[in-house]
Formats: sequence, structure tokens, C-alpha cells
Amino acid sequence: MYRTNTCGELRLNHVGQKVTLAGWVQRSRKMGGMTFVDLRDRYGITQLVFNQETDADLCDKANKLGREYVIQVTGTVTERSSKNTNLPTGEIEIIAENLVVLHTAETPPFTIEDESDGGDDIRMQYRYLDLRRSVVRRNLELRHKMAFEVRRYLDELNFLEVETPVLIKSTPEGARDFVVPSRMNPGEFYALPQSPQTLKQLLMVSGFDRYFQIVKCFRDEDLRADRQPEFTQIDCEMSFVEQEDVLNIFEGMIKHLFKKIRGIEFNEPFLRMTWADAMKYYGSDKPDMRFGMKFVEMKDLTEGHNFVVFDSAEYVGGICAEGCATYTRKQLDELTEFVKRPQIGAKGLVYVRFDENGTPKSSVDKFYSADDLKKWGERFGAKPGDLLLILAGPAMKTRKALCELRLEMGSRLGLRDKDTFAPLWVIDFPLFEWDEETQRFYAMHHPFTSPKAEDIPLLDSDTGAVRANAYDMVINGVELGGGSIRIHDSELQDHMFRLLGFTEEQALDQFGFLINAFKYGAPPHGGLAFGLDRLVSMFAGLDSIRDCIAFPKNNSGRDVMLNAPSVLAESQLEELCIKVNPKN
Amino acid sequence: MYRTNTCGELRLNHVGQKVTLAGWVQRSRKMGGMTFVDLRDRYGITQLVFNQETDADLCDKANKLGREYVIQVTGTVTERSSKNTNLPTGEIEIIAENLVVLHTAETPPFTIEDESDGGDDIRMQYRYLDLRRSVVRRNLELRHKMAFEVRRYLDELNFLEVETPVLIKSTPEGARDFVVPSRMNPGEFYALPQSPQTLKQLLMVSGFDRYFQIVKCFRDEDLRADRQPEFTQIDCEMSFVEQEDVLNIFEGMIKHLFKKIRGIEFNEPFLRMTWADAMKYYGSDKPDMRFGMKFVEMKDLTEGHNFVVFDSAEYVGGICAEGCATYTRKQLDELTEFVKRPQIGAKGLVYVRFDENGTPKSSVDKFYSADDLKKWGERFGAKPGDLLLILAGPAMKTRKALCELRLEMGSRLGLRDKDTFAPLWVIDFPLFEWDEETQRFYAMHHPFTSPKAEDIPLLDSDTGAVRANAYDMVINGVELGGGSIRIHDSELQDHMFRLLGFTEEQALDQFGFLINAFKYGAPPHGGLAFGLDRLVSMFAGLDSIRDCIAFPKNNSGRDVMLNAPSVLAESQLEELCIKVNPKN
Repeated sequence: MYRTNTCGELRLNHVGQKVTLAGWVQRSRKMGGMTFVDLRDRYGITQLVFNQETDADLCDKANKLGREYVIQVTGTVTERSSKNTNLPTGEIEIIAENLVVLHTAETPPFTIEDESDGGDDIRMQYRYLDLRRSVVRRNLELRHKMAFEVRRYLDELNFLEVETPVLIKSTPEGARDFVVPSRMNPGEFYALPQSPQTLKQLLMVSGFDRYFQIVKCFRDEDLRADRQPEFTQIDCEMSFVEQEDVLNIFEGMIKHLFKKIRGIEFNEPFLRMTWADAMKYYGSDKPDMRFGMKFVEMKDLTEGHNFVVFDSAEYVGGICAEGCATYTRKQLDELTEFVKRPQIGAKGLVYVRFDENGTPKSSVDKFYSADDLKKWGERFGAKPGDLLLILAGPAMKTRKALCELRLEMGSRLGLRDKDTFAPLWVIDFPLFEWDEETQRFYAMHHPFTSPKAEDIPLLDSDTGAVRANAYDMVINGVELGGGSIRIHDSELQDHMFRLLGFTEEQALDQFGFLINAFKYGAPPHGGLAFGLDRLVSMFAGLDSIRDCIAFPKNNSGRDVMLNAPSVLAESQLEELCIKVNPKN
Repeated sequence: MYRTNTCGELRLNHVGQKVTLAGWVQRSRKMGGMTFVDLRDRYGITQLVFNQETDADLCDKANKLGREYVIQVTGTVTERSSKNTNLPTGEIEIIAENLVVLHTAETPPFTIEDESDGGDDIRMQYRYLDLRRSVVRRNLELRHKMAFEVRRYLDELNFLEVETPVLIKSTPEGARDFVVPSRMNPGEFYALPQSPQTLKQLLMVSGFDRYFQIVKCFRDEDLRADRQPEFTQIDCEMSFVEQEDVLNIFEGMIKHLFKKIRGIEFNEPFLRMTWADAMKYYGSDKPDMRFGMKFVEMKDLTEGHNFVVFDSAEYVGGICAEGCATYTRKQLDELTEFVKRPQIGAKGLVYVRFDENGTPKSSVDKFYSADDLKKWGERFGAKPGDLLLILAGPAMKTRKALCELRLEMGSRLGLRDKDTFAPLWVIDFPLFEWDEETQRFYAMHHPFTSPKAEDIPLLDSDTGAVRANAYDMVINGVELGGGSIRIHDSELQDHMFRLLGFTEEQALDQFGFLINAFKYGAPPHGGLAFGLDRLVSMFAGLDSIRDCIAFPKNNSGRDVMLNAPSVLAESQLEELCIKVNPKN
């Protein structure tokens, strides 16, 4: 036995006990003939005391300990004279009687403290040291707890966790696949799953009724802060259900997590919003509902005043920022610069301030009278002291710009607190997306998503207007998951493939197993998938999903700690019947 | 809502309720103006009744239902006149009032019954139909339950489930890696993990203290019935532990599973046996302890009787088969043929029968007197009516042959019951294995396994004799898991690499990240991994791990249902900077 207790558990009621602890030296300091060592393990920090007077040899040994040495200490638990109320173990200390150095340590390249002095690159390279920092480790503890609670919730509801294969078949539709050459089948390749979508549908055909899996998925896409080449999904599917059943079960799951993990109870049903409304009122399919500032359209109010910018615009609309009439010229200029940035691309920003008497003052006073502006204010529900921020231009683009402006104002006004959560279901997504470049429709979700029954007649006549039984869960502007009710009718599925431009041969080549399976009796089914990485990040209040992943990859898809990927031996490639073929 | 209840839950106390069920038509039969349909879902089977007299249209519709049609039925729960005691729902039936066909079905290529008429190949191709059979689905339900109980047990003990990456670095040591070309790093490859061994050790260096993960692992090896290219491990690691701590925790886990899943309580500690004893007494490092027949060595007893076969043999030994003196000439000939099969390779079989009076009769009466044979009997502890089966030859080979003979006799005597479980820890494995072909030592477990402290002085002088802190859990002759206490001392690790023939450069190239990590303070640590597929197979009483895997691959590594692996588009290969390079 290396230890009798952990570094996190000793309290006043242990005083007098002889204990053995093991862990890492967090820091040590000498003070008046005593040496104090903070000993750290996963569970906490306990103070050790070495006394020069009573045991000089032992104290000398302790004085030689460096940061991050691994040691084992035996001693007696004693009440501290000066207590540290910041530590759960801060009322006691261990009077050391024996010390064993289990492992020495070189000086770490950065400090192992909550606030580290290490940059991102060095912390990625020495990730095993970064993981010693309790702020990082706690994210992974949270991840463990959340995954466990998800399993507990779904198990209670008769969901079966079924492992689907990682070595599957490549399908050209969708994102790029990672592929794996097969040695036993030379010239052929497996693909790593982008999601177990078709496999979980097969499980429904098999009668599994309620499936889930917390599962690694893979997409060979260019990376961003919230994307990793491998990521983890909570993947779920149910049979004999309609959209309402799926939403209820998984709203329940998210509520369960909030309650168990964050102690937050949601007593009301989550807000629901159609995709059309989300786009119209928030310019986004994942609006941040922690705050209001719903878009107000006003094209009709602005016409006929010779203000060409508005008159020539397809769309004129804005938001009302409460209490912001005090914004200075400089602040308004900043906002103007913000919306004019190339990635937002607005041409300019019109404002109207309402002073404490409700008197308007705007950047377009030349075109609109105070009465006109007051009418605008009425439509926005503006009160004295409020500020209207108005953009104009093509509808889609301007709504997106207004969305960014709204989020910026939300941040400036402190309305996007990380400990406030505003869950939302976005429903009624369009079934198709039109792609200008290839001049064809793509499935917005995937080719198995069912259209709304009432929109089926529009499939051929007004394809772009067909709405899907598809839904996303959005919290605080982040899409955490989404899914759909699937097509379970072979004829409708054929129709869908045709609209997506698949020949029958292509459809069979790629999805033959699923199309065939349906012939033997498919139940109505649907489901969804949550991104576990994003869910944990949200619960942990992190900006990037990287910090809730033990060993993440960088933006070039490299694991700089392992130095992967790497070059293979020629013999290994030969055995796999492949060759490296450098691009010119 | 597609249903108010499942097909497994209605009982007498529901009589009179109006219900809606949905599921698959298991079978239907007409009898005296009535049509009876067995409706199946994951939860059970419920009988539906359609009455020609009361509703002819509905009954006609029911008569058109084929097997495996997916239907929805509304009706009233009624007590059955002729009850079926084999079904939990056998006391009731549903008098149907409405019937909706949700999906028709073609005739399945094999019957969806517990005893199917489908061969292995067709059932693999139509795996989604095979999974409808409750005997197959129950294995996956068991798998779900076992994985959940493992998580529950380990979570209680403060183990954290940490996901380690699937895209890692290839290491030439060990089995063949599956590799993944990196598009973003042309010419370089990731490898899929054969196990998260080094990553879990890094987590110990990070202070995670107790780690586990139920995780997919990959080995590109030729396949057998109990091997799949992708398999699932329960992977575990602990810090500040000795071998005893690890054995206790995981013996507890296996006991927990037996109790929760099979209702079997083991009140005694599991048997432990050194590897040396296992080889000596059972000729195997994974002896089946459901029965005795321990090997008895008798070279000394047989010498000097001019029986050249024994006199020239390095090893003479046998087993005592209780009550088998009645074995006929034909049965003994069968056993002789059995041991002479090429894969076993014994030259012949010597037997001694002890009749009801204890009088011996043997195949070597010419060389040994009745008194000699009685002395043999004494050493074996043979009783009247017992049969000795004796082999001779080179020690290692003969023990292995005797092991096969012992298992065969165990099977013949019905001593290998699938519902009896005999767990065993095999301990003190050798640290190294000598390979004749390459004339070097290999790590029996892996290069991070620690030698027993008392054997460290032998590392250079008697390398092959060094025992490891390594252990396997064996149940009923199947190795379910194994692990070791790791080396956490850099000097000892260097020594180990040297003995394994690594240059310093090679060691750094392959394991540099681990070697470097240790420099910053590594705790003593150790762990193990269980094969989940094997564990579930054992609990389910299956002969092959395939039946507890939802979508297994065949012996050529193919998923015949998905038709994977498959050929990629030329453009896909180009983007990955690789080319297929056919062997000549």
C-alpha cells in the first residue's frame, strides 16, 4: 500500500491518526526552522511539515525536494495553528516522520498552477503536464460525469447502448472521410464513420427500438477552434416515434444534465422556434436566447423619404439596445466599423438615440422627422434612453450582419453570461439547400430526413420550400445537437434520392444495404445526435472544445505530443499495397 | 404517439383497457373464423385477434398481412381462454379494432426465429434481419448491461473514464497497425490504437490516479473465431498501487458483474496460480479450472524398464480420468488419434485402467508389472475404476498435448458446463519471451512491464528467468484480461529497452513522449485491460465473440452487409496523396 489516504480527504476529525500520503510536490517553503511542503494529488492538496529541530536529517531531505517530485510521506495528522480556509484540508497538516522520493522531476517547462505561464503550443506539446493543472483536469472530470449521467438517464428509459463498427464503408456524400487501407483486401479501403447514421437506422429495422451510443466520429475537414478531426457524439435513435416524442425524451436528458451537473432546474418546457422565425428574427439558425433584441423590420416605415440607402434596400431592420442612448460618437463609430468588417460586410450603420424625454436623435435626421423616428421607436417598443441600431441591404446578408451586431451588443451589455443557459429547439428546418455552384439541391440534414407530411405535395413543384421533420437543440447560440424523423417509406426515399440528383445506381451503390433493409419492414423512426465535446464545453464555460479533450489535435490535425501523423516504413506501405504519391 | 404500450408489458391487470401496439408480424394463423396474429417488438410478443364475424373488412385486411410486416393495431385487452404459459403476455390478447400497415415486407431470406434456417454467410449479409432474432438481440442487451455495470462499479471507486484519441502514432513493435493517411500532412499517416497503453500511462503521469475507458482497439492480424480487426477493451490504470491493489479492485469488478448479471456470488477470493505452475500442471497459461485432472509427472517411476519411448523422453506425465476404466478399445483408439493429430503432435498414448478391484491393465504391461502400475496409480491418487492417460516426449510440447487431452476429457465427462464459472488469476508471468527466429528477447506483455523486485539482479545474467509483475484473469480456460505493474523508473526502463534490442534512438523515436513524460515525475502505477467481447461471450455462453457484436466482420476482415472495405474514387486517393500499388 502506497498510501492510507488521498491528499484531499483529511480533516480535523483525523487529527492524531498516523497516515501515509503520496503525490506530487506542488511547492515548498522554509520558515523558521520548519519546511512546509504542499503535496498534491487528484483529490486535493495537503500540507506536510518537516521540523529541523526534531529531525534534521528528514528536514534536510525535504529541503532537497524539487517541484513535481513524486513522494511518499508518513506522519501524524495535526491541527494547524494558522488555518487556510481556501483549502478543504486547510485545517490540518501532517507532521512528517518518514519521506520516500518515488520519482525525481526536472523543472517543468511551465508552471503547474491554475494560471499557467505556458503558451498554447508548449502546453499542447507537454499535454501530460498541462493535464496536471486542476483547471484542466476538472474539465475531464466533468466530461466523465456528464457521459455517465447521459448513460444513466438513457438506460432508465430502456435505451440500449450498441457499439457500431469504426471500420465501415466510404460514402462520397457529405464531408470528407478518413480512410484505412485494408491489407487483407488489397486496393480496398475502409472509412472511419462521420456518424453511425445508417447503422443506427439499421438497428431500428432490426427492432432495437431505442438505441444510443457515445461514440467517436471522424471528419477530415479543415479545423477551427470548435472542430477536431475526431469528436464524440451522443448518438440516439428511436422507433415508433414522432418528432414530439424525440423532443420530449431529449429535452428531458438535457434537463437531467443541468440538474445533476449544474444544479439548475428548468421547470418550463424549452422554447421552440421555427427555422424561418429564427432566421427572420435573429438572422441565425442558432440564436442566442440569453437576451432579447429581436430584429424589427421597418422597410415600410422608411420608404418615400428620399433616403436612397433604405429605399434601394431589399431589407431594412434593426435592434433596440436598451439604455444605450448614452453611447458616445466613438462607441457608435466602433459599432459602425464592426458591421463594416469584411466578414460581416454591412455598408454602414444607422442609429437613433431616444433621450431621457424620448426625443429622438439619429444619423438620418436629414431624411426623417422626429415624428417619423418616434414611429420607428414605437415599432421597436423603444423607451426613453434606448438606442436603435439599423442596417439595410439584401435580406439574407443583412439579417446575418444584424445577427453579429446583436451578439456584439449582447456581449457589450453583459447579457451573455456563461452561467446563464437559454435552451431552444429550432424546428421545421428546410429539407433542401440549393447550391449555386453545382446548381443542385443538397439535403440540409441528410438524405434520410423526412419532409413534413403537409409539404410532400411540394416536393417537385416547390422543392426549396419543403420543410423537414428536423430539429436542432441550441443553447446560448451554440448548436449542441440535432436530428430528424427519418423517411421509412421506400418510395419516398427513392423520390428524395431523385431530387438530390442520385441515379438509382448511385443510390444503391452508396446506400444499398439501407434501401434493401427497408424492404423487410422498417418501423417509423427518428433520432438525433449531440456533440459531447460541445456539451461539456458549454457546461464547463470553455471557449474551445479542446480543453475538454484529453489529447486534442492542433489546427493542422497534428498531435504534437505524440508527433502524429508520421511517416511509415516502406515495408509497412508495401504490405498495405499503397504508395505515397506526392502532389506536384 | 404510435403506441400506448409495448408488446411485452400487457398482463391480466390491463384487461378492459384500450391500447395501441406497434411492431412486426411474427406469424399469423386462421382458426374458425378468427385470425390470430403474433405481434413482436423488442420487449415481447402479444397476440392480436381479428374476428371475421364482428368485422369482416378488418379481418380480411389482417389475412393479407405477411411475415415481418410492420403494423399498428388498436384494440382492447382481453383475457385469453386458452392461456400460453410460455409467454409473459400469454394470459391476454388484443381484440383488434383498427389496423394500419406501417410498412410491408418481402419474405426474409431466412426465418426470424430462435432456431433460424439461415447459414452463417446469409445471416452476416442480412445482419439487420439476424438481429431481429431475440437470441441474437439478447446478447447485445447483455453487452449493454455489462458495460453499464462496469461503468457503475468503476465510477463508485473514483475511476474517471477518459477518452483517448483514435488517430495516434504508428509503432512498429507489437501487432500490425491499421493506418490512416493524413490529407493535411501529405505522406504521413496516423495509426489506430492497438490499445491506449501509452496514453493511459501518460494520464497517470498527469495525476489522473484512476482511469478507465471502454474503448475500441484495432489490430491488423489474420482473423479467427475469437478475433476481430476491431474489438473493445475495458482499459484501466491506477497510480500508487502494487499488484495486490490492482488484483483486488478488478476481482471485485468481475464479482460485481457475476452478481448483477448472472446472480452468482463468489464469496471466496479467486484462485491464484503462478505461470510456472499453470504450465507445469495444466500445460497452459490459461487453464480451465472447472475441473481437476492436474498433470502428474512420473518420469522417475518409469525409468529402467526398457520401455524406450519413456526412457528416451524428456518428460513423462499424465492425467487421471475418474471412472473411465470402462473406456472401450474404440474410445481409447479415438483418444490416441486425437493426441496424434498434427496440431497436437503426440506420438502415442499410454493408458492404465484400474478395474473395480484396483487391478491395473495397461497398454504397457509388457514393460511394467502390476506393482509398478499400482505405484503409478498411487502417485495419481487413482481409485478403482479410474483411467490413467499418459504421454511422453519433449517437456513443453508434451505438456501442451496433455493440456489438449485434459480439455477433451473434460468435455467428454461433461465437466465444462457453460453455466459453471471457475475464475483464476495467473500471476508471475515471465518478463521476456525468447524468439528463436530473430534470436532476441521480446517483452511477453509489453516493454513497460516491471520485473519483480527480487528478480532485477537477474536481468543481465539470466534474462529469461526474470518474472514480471504481470497477471492475467482466466475464466474457464479463456483469457479475459491481463495487465501489469509498469516500470516507473527511467533507468530501469532504459535497461529494459536495451535488453529488448532497442537503440536509444529507436526507443526515443517510438516512445519518446512517454520517456520524456516520466522525467517530470511518474507515480508508481499499473493496470490491466479486459476484452469486453470475450467477457460478454462468456457470460452469454457463446462459442464466438461475433454473436455479441452488432456488425461483425468475417474472416477476411469484410463487412459483407456494408460491402466494406471498398475501392475509392481516384480523386479521393489523389487528395490523400496516395496510390494503390498492387503486389506482383
